[in-house]
Amino acid sequence: MIIDRHIGLYTDLYELTMAQGFYLMGQGDKPAVFDYFFRKSPFGGSFAIFAGLDDLLELIENFRYDSEDIEYLRKIGFRQDFLNYLKNFRFTGDIYSVAEGEVVFPYEPLFRVHAPLIEAQILETIVLNILNFETLIATKAARMKIASKGKMVIDFGLRRAQGLGGIHASKAAVIGGAETTSNVYSSMLFGLTPAGTMAHSWIQSFDSEYEAFKTFADIYQDKTVLLLDTYDTLKSGVLNAVKVGKYLESLGKRLLGVRLDSGDLLTLSKACRKILDENGLGYVKIVASNMLDEYRIDDLVQKGAPIDIFGVGTNLVVGRSDAALDGVYKLISIDGVPKMKISNDPEKILLPGVKNIIRYYDENGLFKKDLVVLEEKLKDQGEAEEILLKPVLSSGKRIHTRKPVKRIAEYAKSRLEKLPDYLKNIYKTQVYNVSVCNSVLNLRNSMIKSLAGGFDESSSDS
Amino acid sequence: MIIDRHIGLYTDLYELTMAQGFYLMGQGDKPAVFDYFFRKSPFGGSFAIFAGLDDLLELIENFRYDSEDIEYLRKIGFRQDFLNYLKNFRFTGDIYSVAEGEVVFPYEPLFRVHAPLIEAQILETIVLNILNFETLIATKAARMKIASKGKMVIDFGLRRAQGLGGIHASKAAVIGGAETTSNVYSSMLFGLTPAGTMAHSWIQSFDSEYEAFKTFADIYQDKTVLLLDTYDTLKSGVLNAVKVGKYLESLGKRLLGVRLDSGDLLTLSKACRKILDENGLGYVKIVASNMLDEYRIDDLVQKGAPIDIFGVGTNLVVGRSDAALDGVYKLISIDGVPKMKISNDPEKILLPGVKNIIRYYDENGLFKKDLVVLEEKLKDQGEAEEILLKPVLSSGKRIHTRKPVKRIAEYAKSRLEKLPDYLKNIYKTQVYNVSVCNSVLNLRNSMIKSLAGGFDESSSDS
Repeated sequence: MIIDRHIGLYTDLYELTMAQGFYLMGQGDKPAVFDYFFRKSPFGGSFAIFAGLDDLLELIENFRYDSEDIEYLRKIGFRQDFLNYLKNFRFTGDIYSVAEGEVVFPYEPLFRVHAPLIEAQILETIVLNILNFETLIATKAARMKIASKGKMVIDFGLRRAQGLGGIHASKAAVIGGAETTSNVYSSMLFGLTPAGTMAHSWIQSFDSEYEAFKTFADIYQDKTVLLLDTYDTLKSGVLNAVKVGKYLESLGKRLLGVRLDSGDLLTLSKACRKILDENGLGYVKIVASNMLDEYRIDDLVQKGAPIDIFGVGTNLVVGRSDAALDGVYKLISIDGVPKMKISNDPEKILLPGVKNIIRYYDENGLFKKDLVVLEEKLKDQGEAEEILLKPVLSSGKRIHTRKPVKRIAEYAKSRLEKLPDYLKNIYKTQVYNVSVCNSVLNLRNSMIKSLAGGFDESSSDS
Repeated sequence: MIIDRHIGLYTDLYELTMAQGFYLMGQGDKPAVFDYFFRKSPFGGSFAIFAGLDDLLELIENFRYDSEDIEYLRKIGFRQDFLNYLKNFRFTGDIYSVAEGEVVFPYEPLFRVHAPLIEAQILETIVLNILNFETLIATKAARMKIASKGKMVIDFGLRRAQGLGGIHASKAAVIGGAETTSNVYSSMLFGLTPAGTMAHSWIQSFDSEYEAFKTFADIYQDKTVLLLDTYDTLKSGVLNAVKVGKYLESLGKRLLGVRLDSGDLLTLSKACRKILDENGLGYVKIVASNMLDEYRIDDLVQKGAPIDIFGVGTNLVVGRSDAALDGVYKLISIDGVPKMKISNDPEKILLPGVKNIIRYYDENGLFKKDLVVLEEKLKDQGEAEEILLKPVLSSGKRIHTRKPVKRIAEYAKSRLEKLPDYLKNIYKTQVYNVSVCNSVLNLRNSMIKSLAGGFDESSSDS
């Protein structure tokens, strides 16, 4: 875990303000249900890759307040009786979720918390903070991988990441389709094999580019990837790389790759490929980097750029240009009674009630449609092919241990293979068929009618 | 400190790969100088607010490798002799920097590291990760504060922040001009007073909106801010708020505020203001939130929306739409010899040599121009009004302790007051006069000539 102290303070003040209110009113124990969902797929796409679940469940299982936290909360005005409650706080509820790495769609209930109201409420910030971000980045990585047409994508983004956000960004990138990351910290935490060779400063610190390349090759031998653009990619970089490639051959080794990091990557990759091939270095891979995103990758791939590996940084780890997912965590039931916020914005209206998702397949084994259905009606769906929300945490304890990130990534890959091609268009939003069963719609309509008159006409009891 | 373990692993693999190379070649001790700077102000603006310095210096002072880290690095292939070196790694160099909270401009050298090559190199990732992000967010907050024309801006963004990036985002937001934050964790770490009252779930958990409002008011009394849009802002929310306002008056208290979180904020704020005023509640503040940014705030302010406090979330803490700053950390001198990367992209060419910034003021005490000058020529600038880079870390030790964030924020505010108005235009990039003295330009030109032939024509020594 990254945050292993003060987890309970990793929240917005209003969660604690409301929690204290529920506690003081004796309402905190009412059984409540909250749904997490998003309203719009990120990046104008059709889908998202659900990520962050294991990190989140770990935090929830360990969510508590130590004496230092309690002291801080006292200082900012919380009351002693509520603080006594917080001292012993543990999440005791149940959680249902779609699998981490799942391909998911707007308005689907993805993560559902059943718990005493106060416990369910107090988790809001951490649920949104983790799921919104990791889902955003995993989705961005998936889009880049789709654009690469099977070429390798590697995350190089930590230097421009949003501070410590880089820790989960690199991991989520791997879930979504990046082969690996340059981020050593995340690699250690999440069992990945980090990648990376040299920056321009390596080359500049030597008297000549050739000397810099050869020294590196002497040390790293067949793990050598040479950065070509410190002086001039074609007039200097690739020529020195050829010399070092030949030198490595003389040692019985092979130059692994060269990296292009500026200029016209299409022209440069073609020219470098030609020079390498003409010199018998057809096996040397070309890595390209420099502000790549799915559109730039697609353009290069479509135009036949002979690039083997795309090194992607900023645009991946900050999830440009969206930079955030609009996921929300909403109360849908309390004391067994369905609840719903209506709104001056019609799109903010919710689907009430305790729901699950059934996924149907077409005759080719591809995703055909999803149906959002009341949990209590699940058993009526005889034809149900796949139920997406499953228990992941029971009475406050995780049901499964953390999955290796590589396994989550494999799952995401296998699910993306079942996503029809028209939904993988990176330029256009295509709508996947997500239906809401009548039982949910009827419930919603009856609630809208009954809620419309929310103003209490009785006189103030002041 | 947030990361208090494995700090040395919070880096890209290539830093360690190069560090090992320098070490094995016996080059690690060469004195080197690196500059941090950015090439373009974020958000199409004219300036940036430099932030992250204290966090960064703390990490640098504590940058090291414990036995677990060493074991991990061994596992991924690093060599024993280099690992023995890392075991005792401490940063021993000197650092010069502009003050945290300073108003800064593109291409200015903001943060300069003098250290043995290996130490200076190994810091690259952490320097960029921290300074790029905090500077981005502080700048975004400053733009929102400028647009608000002196109204209050509060950060509510943790729920949509980039994971743990939210920790420093909230702090940087305060440096840039946000009054405070909803983020309890960051408030504790950085000595802020968090803000926040209720979400829709509070209201939904009661049988009526009025009951929800009154219960909250009973508990929080004159700290009460009521969220109006759960059912219908004008037909229900504000009317119930008036009743509760009157109720609080009967207790000798005052309703603090109401919050609008959806719909047309201009129309709703005007209508609510009118209703509140007509009921003698002219003192009740109006808070507005819902995907605000500097443009939306400016529009509301220009149109006379009677909003007292802008609650900003996503767009602030992720620094939309840029979401990243392009700051770089480049080798500028080694063994006393100026160094420079040229490039196929002309804009990537550097300013070589050890430099400082002199800031000049106009007759009204406003910033007039900055001059980038070689450090060695500083003493020749008799008219120097202000030298921006000062020592902040000497022989690996910080010169000053951490400043309170509120003091950094005050400094930023005082500096923004000295920034001429034309540079505060949020819609248009205006160019501030940053001149580079001839000594730097001459050095650069002579280096470009000498570097152009980087390809070593001598035959490979294979």
